[in-house]
Amino acid sequence: MPEKKRTTIILFSGEYDKAMAAYIIANGAAAYDHEVTIFHTFWGLNALRKDNQVPLKKGFMEKMFGKMMPRGADKMGLSKMNYLGMGPKMIKQVMKKHNAMPLPDLISMAQEQDVKLLACTMTMDLLGLQKEELLDNIEYGGVGAYVGDSEDANITLFI
Amino acid sequence: MPEKKRTTIILFSGEYDKAMAAYIIANGAAAYDHEVTIFHTFWGLNALRKDNQVPLKKGFMEKMFGKMMPRGADKMGLSKMNYLGMGPKMIKQVMKKHNAMPLPDLISMAQEQDVKLLACTMTMDLLGLQKEELLDNIEYGGVGAYVGDSEDANITLFI
Amino acid sequence: MPEKKRTTIILFSGEYDKAMAAYIIANGAAAYDHEVTIFHTFWGLNALRKDNQVPLKKGFMEKMFGKMMPRGADKMGLSKMNYLGMGPKMIKQVMKKHNAMPLPDLISMAQEQDVKLLACTMTMDLLGLQKEELLDNIEYGGVGAYVGDSEDANITLFI
Repeated sequence: MPEKKRTTIILFSGEYDKAMAAYIIANGAAAYDHEVTIFHTFWGLNALRKDNQVPLKKGFMEKMFGKMMPRGADKMGLSKMNYLGMGPKMIKQVMKKHNAMPLPDLISMAQEQDVKLLACTMTMDLLGLQKEELLDNIEYGGVGAYVGDSEDANITLFI
Repeated sequence: MPEKKRTTIILFSGEYDKAMAAYIIANGAAAYDHEVTIFHTFWGLNALRKDNQVPLKKGFMEKMFGKMMPRGADKMGLSKMNYLGMGPKMIKQVMKKHNAMPLPDLISMAQEQDVKLLACTMTMDLLGLQKEELLDNIEYGGVGAYVGDSEDANITLFI
Repeated sequence: MPEKKRTTIILFSGEYDKAMAAYIIANGAAAYDHEVTIFHTFWGLNALRKDNQVPLKKGFMEKMFGKMMPRGADKMGLSKMNYLGMGPKMIKQVMKKHNAMPLPDLISMAQEQDVKLLACTMTMDLLGLQKEELLDNIEYGGVGAYVGDSEDANITLFI
């Protein structure tokens, strides 16, 4: 039996459109029967945040980062034409009109297709993000976990 | 006979310097006899727009996007040091001095070297871009076409 | 004896956090015994600049670029939350607290692990950067050198 194809994506960016691209590619590759990993690091971790505030003990800097960063996929801005938040509204309106899936639905779909959602523990630590604040049913690891999943991959991307 | 090497590039970004990097790598890989695909999605589609306005029937949002986005490769800004358009002028001046190819020429060269220029139909739909507005002799497809070209690729990049 | 695994990274971006990500992945892959190349092009060249000014004869444009771009890894800004330089200070403070390596140390570590640091001669030429301004013990090449190192690579990334 031939080995399964693999796709791994590093999601570094914290923008709505880039995260959308990452999840559309991930879902597409999974539909073509690839094993897929998305490694969420730095600002990309924000796509995995729950949208409600989780009461946790944090230091001053960690609280600051927590407040300054978007809480969850739906709150992220655009990489282009952000225009004080008008861009994301336009994009979401246009997506609705064309029946395109919004980002939170793309993430649920990825979970249903067994895409491995990996959160980078090193940057969680730096930015003061704790497991309780992130979505359920995701995995945790560092750069070693990423390299392990990627070294036999067919498609490797950094977004 | 050994199989040909393959390089596939997703051009997501709409900036002059990033598109230049994409096309320089594509032309370089083609010169080393790779089969090369550039999949233009989101803001990267703007590199494929014709520079003249094409009269077409469009909805309000599609017209807005059409106006707000740069019309063709030569109109794109820089990802860094844009300075109200001064950056792109400086870069183009410096490129001229050093006999470096401007972006539109890099795109023509890619077409001459049989680099496959693929436009993402899903984002064309979202942004209201129609085939008449894009360069001639390009191909159209979705994430499936990208995955198909990429799964045996040697180099896969997201720009 | 099986061939060594390979990872190649194009560092195009000139931001502290993106360069950090590039060097963390490079050091991680090297620790897992990959041969690693980082190809520094466009703004990514700034990570290789020495932090002191090197007196050199330059044209007007080259002098301008030299002044406008950050001189070395430690001077680079963030891709997010830059806030007039407050972001980088916060990140560096948080990194210190968590004993994370600052970027200049990550670069030294990469050199100790024999990661090949490649500077793109074409963009050096465009931006007017000369060898005397860049770190010692790095290599020089164009897109051909990048393609050569990458075509048998397991992981290829554009950052």
